[in-house]
Amino acid sequence: MSPVETEVNQRPWEELARTVGTGNSETVKAYLDTLASTEQSLALDRLSDEERHAVLTTLVPEDAADLVALLPDVQAIELIEDLTPGEAAAIIDELPSNLKADLIGELEDDDAAAILNVMEPQAAADCLRLSEYEDDEAGGLMVTEMLKYPVTWTGAQVIADLGDNADLYRDYDVQYAYLVDDQERLIGVLRMRDLLLSKRGTPIIENMIANPLSVEDKSKIGELIDLFDRHHFFGVPVVTSTDGKLIGVVHRAAVEEARAEQHDSDFLKTQGIVGGEEIRSMPLIVRARRRLAWLSVNIVLNMLAASVIAVYQDTLSSVIALAVFLPIISDMSGCSGNQAVAVSLRELSMGLVRESEWMRVWLKEVSVGMINGLALGVLIAGVSFVWKGNVYLGLVVGLALCLNTMIAVSIGGLVPLVLKRFKVDPAIAAGPILTTVTDMCGFFLVLSIASSMLDKLQ
Amino acid sequence: MSPVETEVNQRPWEELARTVGTGNSETVKAYLDTLASTEQSLALDRLSDEERHAVLTTLVPEDAADLVALLPDVQAIELIEDLTPGEAAAIIDELPSNLKADLIGELEDDDAAAILNVMEPQAAADCLRLSEYEDDEAGGLMVTEMLKYPVTWTGAQVIADLGDNADLYRDYDVQYAYLVDDQERLIGVLRMRDLLLSKRGTPIIENMIANPLSVEDKSKIGELIDLFDRHHFFGVPVVTSTDGKLIGVVHRAAVEEARAEQHDSDFLKTQGIVGGEEIRSMPLIVRARRRLAWLSVNIVLNMLAASVIAVYQDTLSSVIALAVFLPIISDMSGCSGNQAVAVSLRELSMGLVRESEWMRVWLKEVSVGMINGLALGVLIAGVSFVWKGNVYLGLVVGLALCLNTMIAVSIGGLVPLVLKRFKVDPAIAAGPILTTVTDMCGFFLVLSIASSMLDKLQ
Repeated sequence: MSPVETEVNQRPWEELARTVGTGNSETVKAYLDTLASTEQSLALDRLSDEERHAVLTTLVPEDAADLVALLPDVQAIELIEDLTPGEAAAIIDELPSNLKADLIGELEDDDAAAILNVMEPQAAADCLRLSEYEDDEAGGLMVTEMLKYPVTWTGAQVIADLGDNADLYRDYDVQYAYLVDDQERLIGVLRMRDLLLSKRGTPIIENMIANPLSVEDKSKIGELIDLFDRHHFFGVPVVTSTDGKLIGVVHRAAVEEARAEQHDSDFLKTQGIVGGEEIRSMPLIVRARRRLAWLSVNIVLNMLAASVIAVYQDTLSSVIALAVFLPIISDMSGCSGNQAVAVSLRELSMGLVRESEWMRVWLKEVSVGMINGLALGVLIAGVSFVWKGNVYLGLVVGLALCLNTMIAVSIGGLVPLVLKRFKVDPAIAAGPILTTVTDMCGFFLVLSIASSMLDKLQ
Repeated sequence: MSPVETEVNQRPWEELARTVGTGNSETVKAYLDTLASTEQSLALDRLSDEERHAVLTTLVPEDAADLVALLPDVQAIELIEDLTPGEAAAIIDELPSNLKADLIGELEDDDAAAILNVMEPQAAADCLRLSEYEDDEAGGLMVTEMLKYPVTWTGAQVIADLGDNADLYRDYDVQYAYLVDDQERLIGVLRMRDLLLSKRGTPIIENMIANPLSVEDKSKIGELIDLFDRHHFFGVPVVTSTDGKLIGVVHRAAVEEARAEQHDSDFLKTQGIVGGEEIRSMPLIVRARRRLAWLSVNIVLNMLAASVIAVYQDTLSSVIALAVFLPIISDMSGCSGNQAVAVSLRELSMGLVRESEWMRVWLKEVSVGMINGLALGVLIAGVSFVWKGNVYLGLVVGLALCLNTMIAVSIGGLVPLVLKRFKVDPAIAAGPILTTVTDMCGFFLVLSIASSMLDKLQ
């Protein structure tokens, strides 16, 4: 299971294809168990659609579900979409409630409908209800598998139930049992340890923690992160905002996992992967289209910025050396601006800055911009002087880079705050806006300053 | 605690400063408890060094530790460094073992040494030992707080101990108790539920799970992620690779959290924040220096790329319009390349691609590059034709952008694999390498193609 072993295993997908060929579910299961989960992803990723389909249909639904459960969401969706509704339903039915809802939620609407149709009505209804929660709210992060008992029971009854259903409860978090009234409303929490230490006959109500902390199904992830930050709980019960019914438990790990996925897709968005998702096993046309969507916006913005150069063609043609510095100045300002964007995105997500604190961010950034702008400006001025021996050329490019760096960090620092304020996703939009403005300003500064001292430059 | 409430609370740092002024630890603690953890970070972030120092020293060490525990690492370090070794030691002593080790590990060596000096020798030794583990290995992620009993005990003894130390165990994961022999080696795991269902007098050895799964202290996070992917454990015991002694437990949530931090700092690195850490409350000079370190490398690479333009000055001065397209073509290729970089980084971290699979990645990327390059090339060719009415100009810029897009995605896709292969952090290095090469190629393509048909362009 260690990285080392997986290195040894040269081409897991070939071996997997071979075992699937045998059509024996046990063989396939046995082979998959020898692979690390990343190796399983890799192997499935490399199989043909037919082979992949065969893997899921050869395995018994329970094993297929275990496999699907540990794949990245984006890959799991792909696999499910290749199946017939019947095959998919059988597998989804075996997944834990939160994964079940995630998958149904992320499938194309018609695929999802087709699958829900063939599912057992009650299960389908539950699944649909859960899938309506956002991924970043308690309802979307909770599992419905939990220990839940009428508050009227005795310790003996609970212990008996635990014994009778030991297998069913195997995967549950059994640190806490949740106690409800006849309206299914959360009344208290019973810690196993307290049950352990109590007389078997005593009503559990005597050992429970009354008015336990809980979150509403619509609570956002920020609230959950905060709650787990300050309490050492492993899980917190979720109640409906409408009638206070206990409907599930959110585990600390689920919250941390959601946070990791958030950071991951934000990263992809900043690099121009619209939707924050792409794996290379997706169809070529899908990948090309998604990337192009982002590129075509950028090229328009790029032309807009470059049009500034067109305005100053005469200046440029009389001091052609400037053409060498235009890309340097726009690129470098872009770099400085991106650093500021990154820090703002980060501080926003950590809560270290508020959307309204433009002045604070600007002061912090422009001071850095002044130092770095000066340093870079002097450097480039020196280089240009050494190259052309014209001190004024150095003055033009040095001054332009220095000023544009300050502009870039100011804009870079502020844009994420403004976008967030206007409910636009900063991760996807901040970059293009930044580079467009800094390119424009960069070109304008170099060429306008140059125009103002054209005689000295020739 | 909800985002809404925190919005209401206008300037928590002013209120915090005021309560600290009272010098009453209870008042400060009480006020902090009214704030969401992000609000606490925000408030501390905005206090002067003196005020911040006063907050930590006014609170009793245990409360100060609770506060430090829920701050982002980078901020916690800052706070601890402001304290005297004695003050710091008192607080660190109250932290859970893993946080304790994290902080000591991340402090400047001399600060850490000073603090360890004033700590109780045994505690200092433990702390030092733990701090020597990497953040991404089991030893660095585990907590040493766990239920550990001699395998020779009876259920009654365990239950008695649980009762006697209920307070101490309050924050523990009590789903499992770990059973060790007289050499402290892990022999079995006792599930609370099994203890619950057993006769009090029975030796626990009869109810334990023998030969339980465990990881070695040097196991990497990848192995832990895989293990938690395939088992529904909430925690896994950690044993020393040397003598198999049980030394701690890694919880699922700790692994997910480490993963989230990893993604986060990778994102900052790709944007040029060296070390993957910056918050604006850091000293100006530190922030400027770190950012400049990255920028100064980039500007050299940038000049290198731009030097290509210098070589073709004559071509450029005879067809000045080309100067408008140079930045567009280099920027757009950069965008396409970054998309490929992002997907490769992602697939590497998900295990969907191996470092050695250059050919596969290249084929996947160049096919996308062909489609998008063609689309962008046609677009820019059209624009240039409309602008200048010269079909050859369109041909030059269109062809150049098309070819350079294919080059950019090829390099973008491969560079992370190559860097990883040579143990260089792809997050920090891929971007600059990519843009340098694509800028160079872009400038070269436009200007060399133009030179070859100069007569038709004038």
